Amino acid sequence: MSEAAHPDRQFRTPSPRPGGRSARVRADVVAATLAEVTEKGYDGLTAEAVATRSGVHKATIYRRWGGVDGLVADALTASADQPWPLPDTGDLQEDLRRITEEVFTVFTDPEQSPTPTALIAAAQRSDTGAAALRQFFAARHRQAAVVAERAVARGELPTGTDGAEVIRAATAPLYYRLFVTGEPLEAGTAERAADAAALAARAGLFTSARTDREPDSAPKAPTP
Amino acid sequence: MSEAAHPDRQFRTPSPRPGGRSARVRADVVAATLAEVTEKGYDGLTAEAVATRSGVHKATIYRRWGGVDGLVADALTASADQPWPLPDTGDLQEDLRRITEEVFTVFTDPEQSPTPTALIAAAQRSDTGAAALRQFFAARHRQAAVVAERAVARGELPTGTDGAEVIRAATAPLYYRLFVTGEPLEAGTAERAADAAALAARAGLFTSARTDREPDSAPKAPTP
Repeated sequence: MSEAAHPDRQFRTPSPRPGGRSARVRADVVAATLAEVTEKGYDGLTAEAVATRSGVHKATIYRRWGGVDGLVADALTASADQPWPLPDTGDLQEDLRRITEEVFTVFTDPEQSPTPTALIAAAQRSDTGAAALRQFFAARHRQAAVVAERAVARGELPTGTDGAEVIRAATAPLYYRLFVTGEPLEAGTAERAADAAALAARAGLFTSARTDREPDSAPKAPTP
Repeated sequence: MSEAAHPDRQFRTPSPRPGGRSARVRADVVAATLAEVTEKGYDGLTAEAVATRSGVHKATIYRRWGGVDGLVADALTASADQPWPLPDTGDLQEDLRRITEEVFTVFTDPEQSPTPTALIAAAQRSDTGAAALRQFFAARHRQAAVVAERAVARGELPTGTDGAEVIRAATAPLYYRLFVTGEPLEAGTAERAADAAALAARAGLFTSARTDREPDSAPKAPTP
């Protein structure tokens, strides 16, 4: 598997970074939060258990994170800050397939899926968490938009294509099953979602000009 | 607005049906559950409050519904059982637009959105609720698949198109924002999602044969 398509890049547990005691404390607290929320869920998550697990004093945790919702939010922020090498195959459809395959792999692998699944569910339980979740996905969309921007530069996509919207279109069918309907991801789900997004992007459906057009001028593929 | 596109069809509160005392009791309990979960959320929902609000004895509620999670599940089942007139404009893209516009309207209208939003969030909180949610969406996909089946019959879509997958593709970008990322729905979201799904369906991306093909044989639109 190529470096760019490594399955746990997008959601991997942040590793400690150099930066002194404060950065190490944060890394320990984030790691403990991820472990606790994975094992116990939002309802079982406590600042006390995160303190015990991380070896960071409870008073420090309350002072810096406020409580459970701040811990969940910061775990998401730390995840969003992790570098996420993106595919660059020279073909939009292939790049999108690698991105959706990564989501597919993370959320269908019993080893990898519990942490991001628990973290997303926990974030949805408070306004603080929901704001961090929105920022997490906004950051991911922004980062991954580069695959569409490169396709525009190659002449593969029309100028003015909204790269974030291409990424949303490619990944939404997977997250819809995972976090809305609860249907299992099927073998072809990731590829099909990527291909549909690539097709729509090439047809100009994700250009910003598009929203100003009259409904009837939308491009149509010929019927078979 | 046409009958088929009436915005609250998909999620409206079930109305009492003829069928004797048992059916009336159920309708009252479902209506009380919807009102309570909308006002108080899952964490504030109690069988006692549903009993008081519906005028149905608490013992009856525990016996027939088991408790809060059974109440949430049955409210979803009752919603899934409501008739949902689907658009039939003679054009797949237009039919899909009406379906996604309905979802858009329901979830952006401050009058209509609180109940389905609260009900979906509540269902995600228990296995019983999650199973009912899965069945609710499966029923909706199955019902709405008729717009794709009609398009196949008209020769607008290839034989073997998976109608439910067309509906998932059209609606997923909206639910992704609403229930995963928390991003607001924008003006063009519904139309763009419908158009992308119609384009992909016409290109044969949602035929069941598709999953057996080699990855490289996926149809591509010409680059602009």
